[in-house]
Amino acid sequence: MKNAPFAFALLFVSMVSMAQQNTLKQYISSDKNQHRWLNEYTKLLEIPNVFGDSANMVKNAHFLLDVMKRNGIKSQLLLSGKPRSAPVVYGEIIVPGATTTIAFYAHYDGQPVNPKHWAEGLAPFTPVLMSDRHDKGGKIIPFPGDKDPINSQWRLYGRGSADDKAGVYAIITAYEAIVAAGMKPTVNIKFFFEGEEEAGSVYLDEIFKKNKDLLKADLWVICDGPRHISGKKQVVFGVRGDANLDLTVYGAKRPLHSGNYGNWAPNPAMRLAQLLAGMKDKTGAVTIDGFYDDVIPLTETEKQALARIPDVETMLKQDLALAQPDGNGKSMMELLNLPTLNINGMQSGNVGSMASNVIPTEATAVLDLRLVLGNDVDRQINKVINHIKKEGYHVVDHIPADEERLKFPLIARVAKRGTGYNAQRTPMDLPLAQRVIKAVAGTANGEVITVPSLGGSLPLYLFEKYLQSKPITVPIVNYDNNQHAENENVVLQYLWEGIETMAAVMTMK
Amino acid sequence: MKNAPFAFALLFVSMVSMAQQNTLKQYISSDKNQHRWLNEYTKLLEIPNVFGDSANMVKNAHFLLDVMKRNGIKSQLLLSGKPRSAPVVYGEIIVPGATTTIAFYAHYDGQPVNPKHWAEGLAPFTPVLMSDRHDKGGKIIPFPGDKDPINSQWRLYGRGSADDKAGVYAIITAYEAIVAAGMKPTVNIKFFFEGEEEAGSVYLDEIFKKNKDLLKADLWVICDGPRHISGKKQVVFGVRGDANLDLTVYGAKRPLHSGNYGNWAPNPAMRLAQLLAGMKDKTGAVTIDGFYDDVIPLTETEKQALARIPDVETMLKQDLALAQPDGNGKSMMELLNLPTLNINGMQSGNVGSMASNVIPTEATAVLDLRLVLGNDVDRQINKVINHIKKEGYHVVDHIPADEERLKFPLIARVAKRGTGYNAQRTPMDLPLAQRVIKAVAGTANGEVITVPSLGGSLPLYLFEKYLQSKPITVPIVNYDNNQHAENENVVLQYLWEGIETMAAVMTMK
Repeated sequence: MKNAPFAFALLFVSMVSMAQQNTLKQYISSDKNQHRWLNEYTKLLEIPNVFGDSANMVKNAHFLLDVMKRNGIKSQLLLSGKPRSAPVVYGEIIVPGATTTIAFYAHYDGQPVNPKHWAEGLAPFTPVLMSDRHDKGGKIIPFPGDKDPINSQWRLYGRGSADDKAGVYAIITAYEAIVAAGMKPTVNIKFFFEGEEEAGSVYLDEIFKKNKDLLKADLWVICDGPRHISGKKQVVFGVRGDANLDLTVYGAKRPLHSGNYGNWAPNPAMRLAQLLAGMKDKTGAVTIDGFYDDVIPLTETEKQALARIPDVETMLKQDLALAQPDGNGKSMMELLNLPTLNINGMQSGNVGSMASNVIPTEATAVLDLRLVLGNDVDRQINKVINHIKKEGYHVVDHIPADEERLKFPLIARVAKRGTGYNAQRTPMDLPLAQRVIKAVAGTANGEVITVPSLGGSLPLYLFEKYLQSKPITVPIVNYDNNQHAENENVVLQYLWEGIETMAAVMTMK
Repeated sequence: MKNAPFAFALLFVSMVSMAQQNTLKQYISSDKNQHRWLNEYTKLLEIPNVFGDSANMVKNAHFLLDVMKRNGIKSQLLLSGKPRSAPVVYGEIIVPGATTTIAFYAHYDGQPVNPKHWAEGLAPFTPVLMSDRHDKGGKIIPFPGDKDPINSQWRLYGRGSADDKAGVYAIITAYEAIVAAGMKPTVNIKFFFEGEEEAGSVYLDEIFKKNKDLLKADLWVICDGPRHISGKKQVVFGVRGDANLDLTVYGAKRPLHSGNYGNWAPNPAMRLAQLLAGMKDKTGAVTIDGFYDDVIPLTETEKQALARIPDVETMLKQDLALAQPDGNGKSMMELLNLPTLNINGMQSGNVGSMASNVIPTEATAVLDLRLVLGNDVDRQINKVINHIKKEGYHVVDHIPADEERLKFPLIARVAKRGTGYNAQRTPMDLPLAQRVIKAVAGTANGEVITVPSLGGSLPLYLFEKYLQSKPITVPIVNYDNNQHAENENVVLQYLWEGIETMAAVMTMK
């Protein structure tokens, strides 16, 4: 019994802590706060956030800076100094007595967007509330007045609503909620919101190099990507790398009448089809020489984690109206841990009402290569280029001049988009990561899925390379958010729960 | 010597005729007339002429009707009575004593057009004069004032400038010139200007059926398509048939993040590439079962005519910057007498600045099938459909419902564009055709190329089927006119010579 006073003290601390946790929960679920957040978040989504639109990127950054300053976060913009570069919004909270520093990363830029592809009534930068998913009978509903109830199943539509202004907003708001609940973080917090992630985080290395000391942290928590398809919360230890290529092949240099020249003038669309067709077999496996050769296999721990991830394929096939996925029987999780070759876009001439009876002059495909541990961006791209050469093409990096067209029957232009980056994986047994898992589990009845690697990509190798720190990812949004495509959306419930998740990590034991 | 008075009379007639021919030539080459025609023709090109734009099609028709009436041609509109149908502009000149009736056909509608693809300073319905071809250093020049000289090498840019408002305008103006030169046609003339040719002459059969007697003629002269690539005038005895298909294949019903789903979700662009790639070998020969089976070979006369056509391939390859045409060594003329399968357009997702990291939901290609004598539209389309089925696809004619997507791993939607039509060939030894050849040769120092069949298409089989008459084609425009594509243009010299050619046929011996 000699430990009774200590046990009592512990119990007391624990009761205070539980009371505070309840206050925090109430604060996040409060109607008044949710009205205010919905309003403010909608305003954030109204600011266009596509890389290259510098004026609007700066506007986004200042919007965030204002919100952070209002919440007492010491904040500033970090600049790479490169042209067209969007600022990083940085902030920090130093907690007296805290010995651990956690940096929270999210990005406020979004993928390029074609407004014409959005469903009726929806537009990328005019956020709209819907009662359900637009393709599941959802109807557009007016934004609620101050006294109207908010239904947490509503979806907010707009570019960046899920990927990844949701992450940015949840992180800032989590800190607001902690303070409002009379709590304080158990760790020092660094806030780091990037504006160039969808452009391949082209200048993140510059920022890291310039601010090495400022950005020192024991762990980086990346808030990006969707929660597990089952809806369960997850903690992710790695990402695939990514590289994109523009591939263009050529026919005659003028568009030709398909009657007057048909059978004689080569058709670049057919050439592109034949070139692409040879890159994969009919099960989706890449047939380019050595494509899978340098893949580092998963460890036993990682394989076991994969095996514990709930199977969602049956549900997904139904939801996506897919009779048969690619992969020749391999599980989805296994496939997400292999490199990919996807066609993001393909065009030659016109289709639909613009189509006409021509033989087009060129045909282009945008290729997306996802990389896993062991792959290297340049090595992977060279495998593709070597394949194209093996098919008889003269490969160039520029628009071919007439002399080249007259010399080489087959010309392919291959241009790298951005710089691309390699995959990254953090060991699953890292002690600090275990604490994060516990904190997240505490907000989800103990249930949290741990994933060795996402299928998606983030330039997480940069954290290892320039900051000597490890990243882990704690995603918060719904999986069916159409991120990177038209009709992007977030379910409000996921946004509210995301705030709770981030607050739990900031106050982890 | 008893025939002296007759011989003298003949000589006198011949001298009068030569004098009239000179007057006609002078009238056509007169600066004053060319200024007036250039002005009026530019106004005609300003009226948009894409099928479906009914208000503008009617405007085009009334413009022509006004010009014809001003020239004393008894004119009227012929209507099919079908929705969205554009009127035929019809007119006739009955010549006392004439025993032969020649009907002249041209069309005033143009191919659909994407203004964004036009070169800087050019637009489909804002005609512009250029000093030379836009891609050969041509500069935009102002329209000449009444006193400024007109350079006949100038090009007039605009949709329909070559295909085929040039035909329409040359025919009407030829009659104006004949009358102005104090001559009269040697044949009765019927004028027939269609407004739906580029849409596949969908209602031409209706018009023919309704106006069988009105449209009776001994021969139809079709003024459409380009003169020979060598620049020489030609008379053409046939055309290929044409049919277009929209082919769409599907992936998941929502666009998916290429990282989160890559390797698992099928990529419709890759599926389309693989499907198309299997339709042709690398020399451009179609590998679909039986594709060439029902081709009726050329006759000996036709083969001999083919052999006499000047070889232009070396020049063309240089002009088009093509190292190697398709066809595995076959001559261009031989290839134009075989059926084709071309991709007019192909699209999936976005390329260029709109590209994003998605797996698209569908991929579409517009296929163009040119047909030769022996081919049948439906039979040819069925060969393509059977090929698609053989590749494992479930072929539908509608947008597939979820239940179908869940049932069939591979679904292809095949939709016919318009009705399509078969090829047509007129025997080369037809006596009336021989007179036309002689008349055209008379305007070109005796030189005229005779061609068994163009590579291009017109629904000429309809003249045989509904009017029991034979058509032959006398094209007038420059070959490098970009017809069916952006930057369509006509060289003014070709327009003036076209007027002369049409006048020669109207006054043929």
